[in-house]
Amino acid sequence: MVQIKKPRFITFEGGEGAGKSTQIRLLQAALAAAGVPVCLTREPGGSPGAEEIRTLLLKGGVDRWDAVTELLLFSAARRDHLVKTIYPALARGEWVLCDRFYDSTLAYQGYGYGCDDEKMRAVNGLYHLIAGDFKPDLTFILDIDPRVGLQRSKGRTGNAEQRFEDMDITFHENLRRGFLKIAVSDPHRCVVIPADRDPVLIAADIMRVLKEKGFYADA
Amino acid sequence: MVQIKKPRFITFEGGEGAGKSTQIRLLQAALAAAGVPVCLTREPGGSPGAEEIRTLLLKGGVDRWDAVTELLLFSAARRDHLVKTIYPALARGEWVLCDRFYDSTLAYQGYGYGCDDEKMRAVNGLYHLIAGDFKPDLTFILDIDPRVGLQRSKGRTGNAEQRFEDMDITFHENLRRGFLKIAVSDPHRCVVIPADRDPVLIAADIMRVLKEKGFYADA
Repeated sequence: MVQIKKPRFITFEGGEGAGKSTQIRLLQAALAAAGVPVCLTREPGGSPGAEEIRTLLLKGGVDRWDAVTELLLFSAARRDHLVKTIYPALARGEWVLCDRFYDSTLAYQGYGYGCDDEKMRAVNGLYHLIAGDFKPDLTFILDIDPRVGLQRSKGRTGNAEQRFEDMDITFHENLRRGFLKIAVSDPHRCVVIPADRDPVLIAADIMRVLKEKGFYADA
Repeated sequence: MVQIKKPRFITFEGGEGAGKSTQIRLLQAALAAAGVPVCLTREPGGSPGAEEIRTLLLKGGVDRWDAVTELLLFSAARRDHLVKTIYPALARGEWVLCDRFYDSTLAYQGYGYGCDDEKMRAVNGLYHLIAGDFKPDLTFILDIDPRVGLQRSKGRTGNAEQRFEDMDITFHENLRRGFLKIAVSDPHRCVVIPADRDPVLIAADIMRVLKEKGFYADA
């Protein structure tokens, strides 16, 4: 048996093809086996309204929305997701495992486009507007060379994130550096996990971190 | 003949049933007769992307989106509208006549819901994010008792703004007070026009203001 003290909000971040959804499914299975109720969700999307906004965001050409419009749409979707899905799940005592969250906005809309300090303040200001001081309890940043990640990602069928994959490699390298900067700036919340490995080894690292943090304990 | 010095961005504001679209059509006709190129547009919407966001915003029940999500969606639509429609039209030398703009956000999302100072700062901060220091050259606020306006508005068929009409009368009274406060706070830009009158008389007032401002002159 395991001992679980309280529901946690855990986010998974990283570039395309880093293996986030595989790790989320593995952690869900481990938690479910221990009788822990889990809410699986993702961004952009994660609530009916936010999924509709996601559809607007991910379809169409690279230039469909300018960077500011995109940032506002992501923020609107996140607000709906928090209010309709994440807060209620935590209130019901469920763990929330989320595929991408705020750090993806910072990395994609901020670092990815190489934006300036004023823009980063806007990004932070928008997050405060939608969430106040609420943050993930823990964020796993799955780190992988973008050339390897994109190769993996392009092998998939029915991939909805075509728009971002079409950006050039410099964008994806900025993105990776962005995620690593985020981890350095918030070391208590963020853990970087090397992701170019067997998924089972990565999952073992993730369980080890949860135990070290005291979120999960073998009784 | 008339003399027109430069293209102008003119917005029309007011509660439901104030007669904005009638006045915009009358002004368009007067400008067109004088050979002035005009771009007619509206918010939320006014560009293909913003119209899709408009569809999300105006359908569904009163509680579909919370106030913060709604504010972000309106801001995203406005950014797309500015970048794809308003800025290019002005650059081509057209006058832009816009049915609702930023003041509607202030009035509906701010005053209508009776929001606090922090929220109003957020509303202003979002506008600065999307538009910097860009503002309408002139804003006509068509003022009408909300009971009269709603009665007019409900008489129409195919009305897309059902969601806001379903809010109670207090909301609409706050809205009217909000528009009047906006006019007081920015008297150089805003002109309040009593709107419970014959549309032709209102149109004559609007032309008179344009001439007084020096935007339009009989040669």
